[in-house]
Amino acid sequence: MADIKKVVLAYSGGLDTSVILKWLQDTYNCEVVTFTADLGQGEEVEPARAKAQAMGVKEIYIDDLREEFVRDFVFPMFRANTIYEGEYLLGTSIARPLIAKRLIEIANETGADAISHGATGKGNDQVRFELGAYALKPGVQVIAPWREWELTSRETLMAYAEKAKIPVDFAKAGKKSPYSMDANLLHISYEGGVLEDTWTEHEEDMWRWSVSPEKAPDVPTYIELTYRKGDIVAIDGVEMTPATVLAKLNEIGGANGIGRLDIVENRYVGMKSRGCYETPGGTIMLKAHRAIESITLDREVAHLKDELMPKYASLIYNGYWWSPERQMLQTMIDASQEHVNGVVRLKLYKGNVIVTGRKSDDSLFDTRISTFEDDAGAYNQADAGGFIKLNALRMRIAAGKGRSPL
Amino acid sequence: MADIKKVVLAYSGGLDTSVILKWLQDTYNCEVVTFTADLGQGEEVEPARAKAQAMGVKEIYIDDLREEFVRDFVFPMFRANTIYEGEYLLGTSIARPLIAKRLIEIANETGADAISHGATGKGNDQVRFELGAYALKPGVQVIAPWREWELTSRETLMAYAEKAKIPVDFAKAGKKSPYSMDANLLHISYEGGVLEDTWTEHEEDMWRWSVSPEKAPDVPTYIELTYRKGDIVAIDGVEMTPATVLAKLNEIGGANGIGRLDIVENRYVGMKSRGCYETPGGTIMLKAHRAIESITLDREVAHLKDELMPKYASLIYNGYWWSPERQMLQTMIDASQEHVNGVVRLKLYKGNVIVTGRKSDDSLFDTRISTFEDDAGAYNQADAGGFIKLNALRMRIAAGKGRSPL
Amino acid sequence: MADIKKVVLAYSGGLDTSVILKWLQDTYNCEVVTFTADLGQGEEVEPARAKAQAMGVKEIYIDDLREEFVRDFVFPMFRANTIYEGEYLLGTSIARPLIAKRLIEIANETGADAISHGATGKGNDQVRFELGAYALKPGVQVIAPWREWELTSRETLMAYAEKAKIPVDFAKAGKKSPYSMDANLLHISYEGGVLEDTWTEHEEDMWRWSVSPEKAPDVPTYIELTYRKGDIVAIDGVEMTPATVLAKLNEIGGANGIGRLDIVENRYVGMKSRGCYETPGGTIMLKAHRAIESITLDREVAHLKDELMPKYASLIYNGYWWSPERQMLQTMIDASQEHVNGVVRLKLYKGNVIVTGRKSDDSLFDTRISTFEDDAGAYNQADAGGFIKLNALRMRIAAGKGRSPL
Amino acid sequence: MADIKKVVLAYSGGLDTSVILKWLQDTYNCEVVTFTADLGQGEEVEPARAKAQAMGVKEIYIDDLREEFVRDFVFPMFRANTIYEGEYLLGTSIARPLIAKRLIEIANETGADAISHGATGKGNDQVRFELGAYALKPGVQVIAPWREWELTSRETLMAYAEKAKIPVDFAKAGKKSPYSMDANLLHISYEGGVLEDTWTEHEEDMWRWSVSPEKAPDVPTYIELTYRKGDIVAIDGVEMTPATVLAKLNEIGGANGIGRLDIVENRYVGMKSRGCYETPGGTIMLKAHRAIESITLDREVAHLKDELMPKYASLIYNGYWWSPERQMLQTMIDASQEHVNGVVRLKLYKGNVIVTGRKSDDSLFDTRISTFEDDAGAYNQADAGGFIKLNALRMRIAAGKGRSPL
Repeated sequence: MADIKKVVLAYSGGLDTSVILKWLQDTYNCEVVTFTADLGQGEEVEPARAKAQAMGVKEIYIDDLREEFVRDFVFPMFRANTIYEGEYLLGTSIARPLIAKRLIEIANETGADAISHGATGKGNDQVRFELGAYALKPGVQVIAPWREWELTSRETLMAYAEKAKIPVDFAKAGKKSPYSMDANLLHISYEGGVLEDTWTEHEEDMWRWSVSPEKAPDVPTYIELTYRKGDIVAIDGVEMTPATVLAKLNEIGGANGIGRLDIVENRYVGMKSRGCYETPGGTIMLKAHRAIESITLDREVAHLKDELMPKYASLIYNGYWWSPERQMLQTMIDASQEHVNGVVRLKLYKGNVIVTGRKSDDSLFDTRISTFEDDAGAYNQADAGGFIKLNALRMRIAAGKGRSPL
Repeated sequence: MADIKKVVLAYSGGLDTSVILKWLQDTYNCEVVTFTADLGQGEEVEPARAKAQAMGVKEIYIDDLREEFVRDFVFPMFRANTIYEGEYLLGTSIARPLIAKRLIEIANETGADAISHGATGKGNDQVRFELGAYALKPGVQVIAPWREWELTSRETLMAYAEKAKIPVDFAKAGKKSPYSMDANLLHISYEGGVLEDTWTEHEEDMWRWSVSPEKAPDVPTYIELTYRKGDIVAIDGVEMTPATVLAKLNEIGGANGIGRLDIVENRYVGMKSRGCYETPGGTIMLKAHRAIESITLDREVAHLKDELMPKYASLIYNGYWWSPERQMLQTMIDASQEHVNGVVRLKLYKGNVIVTGRKSDDSLFDTRISTFEDDAGAYNQADAGGFIKLNALRMRIAAGKGRSPL
Repeated sequence: MADIKKVVLAYSGGLDTSVILKWLQDTYNCEVVTFTADLGQGEEVEPARAKAQAMGVKEIYIDDLREEFVRDFVFPMFRANTIYEGEYLLGTSIARPLIAKRLIEIANETGADAISHGATGKGNDQVRFELGAYALKPGVQVIAPWREWELTSRETLMAYAEKAKIPVDFAKAGKKSPYSMDANLLHISYEGGVLEDTWTEHEEDMWRWSVSPEKAPDVPTYIELTYRKGDIVAIDGVEMTPATVLAKLNEIGGANGIGRLDIVENRYVGMKSRGCYETPGGTIMLKAHRAIESITLDREVAHLKDELMPKYASLIYNGYWWSPERQMLQTMIDASQEHVNGVVRLKLYKGNVIVTGRKSDDSLFDTRISTFEDDAGAYNQADAGGFIKLNALRMRIAAGKGRSPL
Repeated sequence: MADIKKVVLAYSGGLDTSVILKWLQDTYNCEVVTFTADLGQGEEVEPARAKAQAMGVKEIYIDDLREEFVRDFVFPMFRANTIYEGEYLLGTSIARPLIAKRLIEIANETGADAISHGATGKGNDQVRFELGAYALKPGVQVIAPWREWELTSRETLMAYAEKAKIPVDFAKAGKKSPYSMDANLLHISYEGGVLEDTWTEHEEDMWRWSVSPEKAPDVPTYIELTYRKGDIVAIDGVEMTPATVLAKLNEIGGANGIGRLDIVENRYVGMKSRGCYETPGGTIMLKAHRAIESITLDREVAHLKDELMPKYASLIYNGYWWSPERQMLQTMIDASQEHVNGVVRLKLYKGNVIVTGRKSDDSLFDTRISTFEDDAGAYNQADAGGFIKLNALRMRIAAGKGRSPL
C-alpha cells in the first residue's frame, strides 16, 4: 500500500463518500481534505461542511463551480453538437474533468500527495477522474476505494458506517432511490434497478426534473435564443451568464416535457449499460445550435465538424478532456464558431423542440440565389451542366471500361 | 445541339413534365419514351398513360417501384443511421438513384440515346439523376430542359402549355400549392414560398401527411418492431414486406404527429436552402434502429459506423449512390448488420418516439457484468486500475515534461 | 461576353502567356496588368517587364515571393506531413493559392475587374487559381483563355503569335522541352510526351534538378536540421530564412539524387494523369519532420493528424487553400506544433534519406520507462494485465455469445 | 493464482521460453503443450522438439505457417497500403494474430484451459497475443510470466535456467546480440542496446537481412510484379505462392539495400520506443501496390482507403486483428481490390524502389482524355467553368458577406 500523507477527497456529503472519508483515515492513517462542489445538482452543498468537520477534517473546500462548469466545459462541448452514440448528451462525462481539475488544484494548494473519489471500478467515472488527475499532476497518487476495499456490498458498507458512527440520516439518504443517480446543471442520470433489464420500460416516477410529455402544458412555449460565437448569451433578448442560461432552459424545458432519454450505451471499460437521462436545457441547446449554424456556417466546415464529432464525443465520454488531442480538436471547433451569431426561435411543446425561425447578420443564406423565382442572374443554371459532367467523369470512364453497376 | 433519336423522360404526368415532353418533341424532333414510377408518392400514376398517349408517345413505362425502393434503397440507407447535417433523413435524395437506374434500363431496352428530367438547374436533383445516369451508361446524352430552354418563368411556361394544347387540368394542378413539393414512401418535402425567409415560421396548413403534435391523440400508441440483419421485418409480430412496413409506419407515425422537420440545408450546388419535411416512418425507423443496434452491435463497430456516416450521408445527398465509394461503404455497413436482430418496443406520443424496451437473442448486454449488484466475479474491478494507468501513461510523461494544461 | 475594363494576367513572359496577353487586348479591348512572380522557378523574371512593355502594358508587377511562398504556404503544409495519394508532395498545388492571392491584391490595387491565367481546361491549376480568386474577391471576373479561344492547337497558337508579332525567341522557348513543366522552389514537374503511356519508363535526360542516384556521390552527406514549432530554422546549426532553407535543401538533396518521383495521380477534374516530379528539399523535409515529431508529439495527436492528412492534402490539391475548412484544419495543425522543437540528423546517400538521430528538449521519449533494463519502478508491468483485460472485455462478451471468428 | 490444468505455450526453443516452460511446470504444476511456428524467421524450428521433449512435454506442435501467414495476414494488410505512423510496415504486429489463432486452436484440440507467451509487460506483443486469444476463446486463461514472476533481470533468469538444468547452448544463444529482435517473413526488428538513445546512430553491423545501400550492386535490378485482386501472383511472369513471392522479394530487395528503417514509434501501452526494421520485400510491395492501384482504382475509393488506413494500421498495431471493427474494415478493403489487376515494373537500386511502368487491362488511365494533344472532343474544356463556379459558390457568398480571408 502506498504511503500517503494527505489526500483530497471528492466529497458529496452522502453516505458513500462519508464512509470513504472514514475509511481513508483508518486505512491510510492520513489527513483528508474534502472538496464539495456545487455543479447545479440541486442539493445543498453547505451541509457537507459540518459532516466533514464532525469527522475531524481540517481543510474543507466547498466551491460553487456552476459558472465555470457551463462556461468552460458545457458550452465548448455544445459548440461541436456533441452526442455520444447518436443519443447521449454527455451530462455526467462533462462534469468529471472539472472535478478532476479542482481536486488537483486543491492538492497543489494543500500539499496533498493523493486524491480519492467514490466512483466504482465498473464505470466510466473512475477513468474520467483519474485520467484528468494524471494529466494535470503526473506524480499524484490515486485512491479508488471501490477497487480496493472489502466493502463490496451495501450491507458491509452500512455495517462499516454504523461502526464508524457515521450519522444515521446519511444512511437514510442512501436508500431514497432504487437508482444510481448523478446530477449537475446539464442533466440527471439514472442507472440500475429495473433498468438492468433492457426490455423493461422505465418507470414514470423515476424522472425528477421534467414532467412527462403527457402532463406538459397544452399550449406551446416560444423562446428566442441569442448566440454569440456559438454560445447562448441571451434568452428572449435578456442577456444572462452561462449558468443562468442553462438553469433557465432546464426550467422551461422540464416544464414542457423535454429531454428525457432511455438508452443502452457502451462504456469505455468494455460493457454495455443502460441509462436514463433528463437533459432539458441541453436538448434545447443542441437543436438550437444546429439551427444557428445552419445559416451561419460554411457547408464544408459544418461537414468536417460532423465527421469529427463522434471522435470528440468519445474523447469526452472516455475521460480525455485534458488530453492534447481533445485540446487540439477544441482549437479547431472554437475557430469555426467565429460567425455563429444570431437568433433562433423555438417552439417547445410536450417533449418537442421545434425550430420555427433563425436569423443572423452573419447569415450565408442568400435568397437571391436559392429562390425559385427569378434570380436576376445571381446564379447561372448552365454552370450546373459542367459541374455534373466533371464530377461524373471518373465514373463515366469506369463505366466505359465495363464497371457499370448495371 | 446534340443529335438525339430517342429520349427517355422521367414523366410525372404533371404540367411541367408535360411541357417538357412537348418541348423535347419540338426541339429535338425526336421520339420520347415516358417513364412514370409509383414510389409511394400517394398519387395515381396510371393517368400519366393517357396523357402521354395524347401527346403521341408510343413507348410508355409505368412501374410500381415501391418494394424495390424500400428494399434496395431506403433500408440499406437506414442500416447506417444516415442523417444529413444532423437532421435530414434524405427522403428525396434516396429516390433519385432508383429513377436514374430505371431511366437507363429503359433506355437500354428501347434503344434510346438520351434521358431527360424535370429538375431545375439550381437544385440537387439534376445532379443525382445525371451522376446516376452517367455512372450506369457512360455514353448517354442528358437533356435538362430547365438548364437549356427559354421558359424561365411560370408565365412563359403556361403560355407554352396553352399554345401546345396541353390540357388545362394540368395547369390547374400546377397551382395547387405555393410550395415546391416532392413525395415518395419515405417523405414529402416543401420548399419555396414563405419558407424562403428563414425567420418566418412554417404554416400549419402546409403539412399534408401528419397531424400536428397538438392534434395527435392524447393516448400513446405502443408498437414493437422486429429486426432481421438490420431491417424491419415485422410490426407487432406481423411479418410484412419492406414497402408495407414503411407505409404502416408512416400511417402510425403521421397519426401521432411524428416526423416533421424544418431546416436550412447546404445544397451540393453551393447554396443554402430551407426545406420542410414530413418523414413519419423514417423518424421512427432511425430511433428504433439505433435502439436495436445499441444491444447487438460491438462498440467499436458502432463508433466506426458513426464516424463514417456523415460521409455516407453526403454521398447519397450529393447523388453518388451509384459511385464505387458508396458501394464500398455499403459493403462494410451491410457486413456490420449480421447480428442486428431482435425487437424494439416504442411509445409514440404527440411527436415523440420513445424507446421503452429492446431485446435480442444476439444481445451483447450482459447483466452479470454491468450490474450494480454482486457480479460473482464476472468482472474484476482491479483491472480498471491498470487500464487507467496505461491509458494515462503518455499524458503523465507529457505532464512530467512540463506540458500539464494547468 | 463579359464587359471587362481591366484584367490582371498571371504572366510568365513565355510564349503562351504572351499570346494570351495579346489575345486579351484584342478580344476584350481592355487594359491588361501583368503580374510575374519569382517563386524560385529558377528563371529570370525581370525580362518579362520589357516584353510586357513591348505589348503596351502600363502596369507591370514583378514580385519576389520566395520567402512568402515558403513561410506562409510550404512550411504550413509540411507541418501536416502532407502527401497526396501516398506519393505527391504537392509542389504545384501549393504555389497556386499564393498566385491567386497576388492576382487579387493587384486587382484591388489597380481597380481591375478581372483576372486571367494560362492554365488549360483539363488541369487542376485553373481550379486552384479560380477558387482562390473567387474566395478572395467574389465579384471578380475570370478569363481562362484556354477554355474560351479557338487556338486549340500548337499550330494555331504559333500562327497567332506570328501575326501578332510576338518576338520569335518566345516561340523558340516554347519548343525547348517535349514536356509540360512547372517549377518553383518546392519542385519541378513534368507531364505529357512519352509519359502519356503509363508503361513507358521516364527518360533520364528529362530530369533537370537532380542527379540520378547512379551519378550521386559515393560518399554520404550528413546534415542536421533544427526545428522550431514544426518549421526548420537552421541547417547544420546555421539559422536561415525559410526560402534559404528550402533552396539549400534542394541543392544538397539534388546533389545526392534525392526526390525524384514518377506517379499516376487523380486530377480533381476527373481523369488520371501521369506526372514526374523532382522535390529534393521537400523529400528531405517530410522525412525529417516526421522524425522530429516522433519524439515530441503525443501519440494521439500524431494519429489524429495522420487521419486528417489525406483530407487536408486533397483540399490543397483541389485548390481549396483559401476555403474556411482548410483554414480550420490549419488552426489545429499549427496548434499541434507548439512542442515540435529539436534537431534531426540525416544521412543522404544516392536517393536515400536516412534518419540517424533526433533529439529535443521537448522529447517525450523516456528511456527510464521504455528501457529493456531495470526501470526502477517507473512502469508497473502488472498494469498491463488490467489494460488488456478491459480492452478485451467487449470481444470476450461477444465471443461468449457465439461470435468468435474461429 | 489460477488453477490451470494444461497450458499451450508459444515456444521458440530459445532460452527465455525454455525457462518459461520450466517455470510453468514448476509454478502451476500443470501440463505444458508447446507450439513452435515457422513464420519465415530464418531459424530452424525442428530443434525445438527435442528441447521440449527433454523437459517432458508430451504434446508438441511444430507448424510451417509461412503460406498462411502471407496469404491471410500479410497480403490482406498490404491491400490497404498499411503504414503505422507514416513509416512502420507492421512486420511484428501482423504475425501475432496468427500465433494467437494457433494457440487457441491447439488449446481447443488439446483441451487446454490456458495459453502462455514470452512477451514482456512493457511491449505491444502481450496485448496482441492476449486480445487475440480472448477474442477467439473468451474463457481462456492467460499466463504472462514476465508480468508475474520474480525473474526480472537477466541474471536471475540465467540462475533459474542453470538451476533447472536448461542446456547451456540456450544460454549462449541468448547472448548473441545486444538487441531484442523479432523476425518473420515480413521483417526483422531490432530494439534496445544503443538504440535506447534516440540521438545515437544505429550501427551498421546490426543489420542482418540486407546489404547497405553503399554495398549494394552498382547496376540496378528490374523486376515486374503481376497483381490479381490486389495481391502479387507472379514475379517476372512466373506465378508463385504468396510465401514464395515474399521470400523472393526479400532476397532481391535485401540484395539491393532496400527496406531499412530507423524510427521512434508510439506503443499502445503508452510509451515511445525506438525500433530498427528491415523489410525488403514489404517495402517493394507497398510501392508497387500503390502503383497498380494508381491506374486501376477509382479516385474516391483510393482517397477513402487513404483516410481509413491510419485507423486500420492502428488496429493491427494495437492487436485488434480479430476484432469486429478490423474485420469490418477488411470487408471494405477487399471489396475495393476487385479490379486491382495488372503489372508493375520496378527498378531497384541501392535502397531505391523506383516505379518505371504500370499497365492493366483494368486501367482507368484514359490517354484520350488526359492528353495534351487534341482529344477529339473526349473532354469538353468548357465544362470546367461551371465545375469551378459551383464549387466556388459557397465561398463567393461568404466573401460577399465579408468573410474573404484577405
